[in-house]
Amino acid sequence: MHKLDHIGVVVKDIQKANELFEKILKTSSYKSEYVQSEDVSTSFFKIGDSKIELISSNDLDHTINRYINKQSSSLHHFAIRVDDIKTEMDRIASLGIRLLNDTPKIGADNMLICFLHPKDTFGVLIELCQEINQ
Amino acid sequence: MHKLDHIGVVVKDIQKANELFEKILKTSSYKSEYVQSEDVSTSFFKIGDSKIELISSNDLDHTINRYINKQSSSLHHFAIRVDDIKTEMDRIASLGIRLLNDTPKIGADNMLICFLHPKDTFGVLIELCQEINQ
Repeated sequence: MHKLDHIGVVVKDIQKANELFEKILKTSSYKSEYVQSEDVSTSFFKIGDSKIELISSNDLDHTINRYINKQSSSLHHFAIRVDDIKTEMDRIASLGIRLLNDTPKIGADNMLICFLHPKDTFGVLIELCQEINQ
Repeated sequence: MHKLDHIGVVVKDIQKANELFEKILKTSSYKSEYVQSEDVSTSFFKIGDSKIELISSNDLDHTINRYINKQSSSLHHFAIRVDDIKTEMDRIASLGIRLLNDTPKIGADNMLICFLHPKDTFGVLIELCQEINQ
């Protein structure tokens, strides 16, 4: 039912980061996408059955850029793939863990997404995602 | 050849974090292990074909505790599973990316491991790992 769908890495310069990850992973980015709902640029790499998502924003006030004040990139979140995001959102909420949105949002890579409130997960940002039209 | 083997999450209180991740992932930790080479306590959860590794140290001066000064936990690293770690270490080094150790170390979960120098990967901590006796 669940798998580790992807990890998200916030980067300052997505072009330079693309070049680095291509070298390390020995594969090219398979998708670059602007995500309107989050106002970020993304780039995806396949690694086995999971993915690495590079994320950047030119807007210095964007929340993601809080993560990279001192460094040029930072691990940002990880995402758990689920079959039925609404059921999982209800289950997580019933545990007393707040959600950052009440209904699933459309995220990158053809996914419905919802983030758990990091204050209820000891500061770690965790995303649920469900493929659209699975 | 490669897969996303695990992500590492540094936590202050591994017991409390265990309880939280058990609830979120709907599964119990399958292994708790003290890793002598790193002087840390770890706990592993399976999620599909990947793993989440919780890491903690009671030593406030331990390098991992730099990551959680303000928060009670933090994404720390991700690990790429390889078949032949020495070959991959040589390849990575030939790209001009420094390694934190010249020879593989014995890490948690029956793995030979090596970290890439985060200064050469825009600050993101990346681990290579190879199963021992694969």
